Amino acid sequence: MGRELRLNAFAMNCVGHQAQGLWRHPRDRSAEYRSLNHWVELARLLERGKFDALFLADVLGLYDVYGGNTDTALREAVQVPVNDPLLIIPPMAQATEHLGFAVTCNLSHEPPLPFARRMSTLDHLTDGRIGWNVVTGYLDSGAKAAGRDKQVAHDVRYDIAQEFMDIQYGLWEGSWENGAVRRDRETGVFTDPAKVHRVRHEGEYFKIDSVHLCEPSPQRTPVIYQAGSSPKGTAFAARHAECVFIGGNEPGKMAEDVAKLRDLAVEFGRARSDILVFALATVVIAATDEEAEAKFAEYQSYVSEPGTLALMSGWAGVDLSKPEQAKTGAASSNAIQSVAASIARGAEPTGRRVGRPVGLGGGGPAIVGAPKRVADELEAWAEEADLDGFNIAYVVMPETFADIVEHLVPELQRRGLFKQTYRLGTYREKLFGDGPRLGERHPAARYRRPER
Amino acid sequence: MGRELRLNAFAMNCVGHQAQGLWRHPRDRSAEYRSLNHWVELARLLERGKFDALFLADVLGLYDVYGGNTDTALREAVQVPVNDPLLIIPPMAQATEHLGFAVTCNLSHEPPLPFARRMSTLDHLTDGRIGWNVVTGYLDSGAKAAGRDKQVAHDVRYDIAQEFMDIQYGLWEGSWENGAVRRDRETGVFTDPAKVHRVRHEGEYFKIDSVHLCEPSPQRTPVIYQAGSSPKGTAFAARHAECVFIGGNEPGKMAEDVAKLRDLAVEFGRARSDILVFALATVVIAATDEEAEAKFAEYQSYVSEPGTLALMSGWAGVDLSKPEQAKTGAASSNAIQSVAASIARGAEPTGRRVGRPVGLGGGGPAIVGAPKRVADELEAWAEEADLDGFNIAYVVMPETFADIVEHLVPELQRRGLFKQTYRLGTYREKLFGDGPRLGERHPAARYRRPER
Repeated sequence: MGRELRLNAFAMNCVGHQAQGLWRHPRDRSAEYRSLNHWVELARLLERGKFDALFLADVLGLYDVYGGNTDTALREAVQVPVNDPLLIIPPMAQATEHLGFAVTCNLSHEPPLPFARRMSTLDHLTDGRIGWNVVTGYLDSGAKAAGRDKQVAHDVRYDIAQEFMDIQYGLWEGSWENGAVRRDRETGVFTDPAKVHRVRHEGEYFKIDSVHLCEPSPQRTPVIYQAGSSPKGTAFAARHAECVFIGGNEPGKMAEDVAKLRDLAVEFGRARSDILVFALATVVIAATDEEAEAKFAEYQSYVSEPGTLALMSGWAGVDLSKPEQAKTGAASSNAIQSVAASIARGAEPTGRRVGRPVGLGGGGPAIVGAPKRVADELEAWAEEADLDGFNIAYVVMPETFADIVEHLVPELQRRGLFKQTYRLGTYREKLFGDGPRLGERHPAARYRRPER
Repeated sequence: MGRELRLNAFAMNCVGHQAQGLWRHPRDRSAEYRSLNHWVELARLLERGKFDALFLADVLGLYDVYGGNTDTALREAVQVPVNDPLLIIPPMAQATEHLGFAVTCNLSHEPPLPFARRMSTLDHLTDGRIGWNVVTGYLDSGAKAAGRDKQVAHDVRYDIAQEFMDIQYGLWEGSWENGAVRRDRETGVFTDPAKVHRVRHEGEYFKIDSVHLCEPSPQRTPVIYQAGSSPKGTAFAARHAECVFIGGNEPGKMAEDVAKLRDLAVEFGRARSDILVFALATVVIAATDEEAEAKFAEYQSYVSEPGTLALMSGWAGVDLSKPEQAKTGAASSNAIQSVAASIARGAEPTGRRVGRPVGLGGGGPAIVGAPKRVADELEAWAEEADLDGFNIAYVVMPETFADIVEHLVPELQRRGLFKQTYRLGTYREKLFGDGPRLGERHPAARYRRPER
């Protein structure tokens, strides 16, 4: 196998995730997000298709920039209502054996010790299939909800994040030595107290003095995802991330960003291949190009323009309901510019390669066609931008993923781009093949105690 | 049916819950707490026996009072390691239809908005089978872990709790009106924004300005449990609790406490029957009294004295490894006194009624015998102390519960004291029969908006 492509399904514990308005589609089932069966069936489908992971987005605030209020977000179900993402993972893990789960948690809403325990608990319950997408928050409404007047400044957020990570690594990697847990019924020793250590931290933003509450889980530290693209965000990713999730639809530009990220990782003492890069993509696929185009057009007829603009306004922090602001805001983000343009044009396909920007897949492109065309696009894109895989947004839940399992996965397998079977072991082993724990080059490794 | 008795199974996402040392018993499986199957099988067993709920304890700190360090707690697995209790509930809900889940969450570790969302998410995923045991924390080590130097004063904790409850009620009961969610594919309206309201609160301890992130769940507010027995704790329970969990082994004294609690509830405008009272009990039951006694003696041989004392020391805040402190400490708590005495005597049965205090069941009594003897005891005890049910601690997991399903439940059913089938509906409907939402007499009701 040459370049292996990994596929994640991109979803959220809500109704309208990336494709706003599509919950009205007669076959869409995203409004069933409150049901356990909904998620269990999705997980089974994804594992049948050998998806690497389900990537769960999250946000703890409302999209209130568009029009200056939350009316559109509420009316169109733009990522609200939104339920907790962690709680749907254990039943999905119970129903599957290999599927990974990468879950977004905003550290500004999480006291360090209970958070470390939640992640360790998930890693235990899933037998090591957990990843954490580290987020510092981008919505002022989320900050208000947490009791602050507004979001703390972007750069400060990453300082807080650095301190938060230090504590997490201390708890996950350093508090319980390997071999601390004996489980010895004969001697009556469950844990050897000499091998358990307090994490003492008194920093600018956090203070803690405790041992970790959990015994070491299969991976200890969950697989670390990151999605920031600012200079501070990229530096954070180059230092901490094992997987990076990027948006955009210009392969050339993405290639530059990916190269910069991998260069920076090397500067931090890591290897270029220590980070896997996933790009956001929407795929509409069918047996023939014509069928796929027809399906795409039918989907497009359900797109909600205000819903899409409300989402984009929240991302950009600019009210796209106001023409003047929209201009400024659009200029600040290519993805938003092109989506706004696409909506304005009425969903007419724009110049190809790598796909068309649409109101369907959030900030990423849509790739539409028969298996050959879609696989060609993904393969060329991954080659040009040096990608390791894709986070696939859905248009119609779960139809988009079912179509990929039926049409795309076999084509990628035929080309030797996609695994025939899952690797054994934890999520980290499936991704990197080197054992369940973080490698020695990762900054978390220095929190470990020497074996004795 | 006369007085209906409810049964909860009392457990914790850890190894050594109440019966310290019993994880060494050859048939005990509590050390498998990290496995999803462990919990799913327990839930199925409990539902087969028509248990009302699984009551999950939790603590976010270590028992470090005994001997002035955490060595004993770690060595004996005294409630450490301890995993997150919320995450095991969805898979158990997936495997059952009627079993309720009452889960302990310490509000001093929970930012209000994410916490409200976690509870609502659980209520959605379980179809309204969630209860919340409101805890304010009793371990200094937990406070330290949360970044405070020590536990805030007891009375202040209940002021914080009151403010926390105000916010939760606002989010659960007041933020989304009935009928706010339309789910109307035709008009494209998912939620009517006019029927969703911000919760604005700027108090002494919390500040929030947000709508609730979740649409209304079946019960909205989870069934509220409380377990405090101080004057402030009792007042809090009388005001807020729907179920109260008490310890102790003197029916006469408990009768006084229960009467006081119900009187106080009436003072707060509620009815005496608005609160169901559950007592902690350990039951060792077999086909004959002799078999049960033999089983009890065999269990006793596994009790860890230091483990038990470490647990008790944490509860009492007194180091029972020091004779002088032990005396003072024991005097402050009857339960601890009698358990300490029982251990000192080598588990010899003490004067009966209502059972014998032992190192097996935490602060409650153990009731040992054939179905007739156990049912007689429970029935008389419930009558004398005006109890509505029992939280049954386990000695050997899950054997204790399997024995109850086999021996006790049929006997209670024969006597008309226990349901033959589950009532339909949410956990609250199963307990009170009046609909899924809190009654009008409860303080949460005034957060509701008038129907229109």
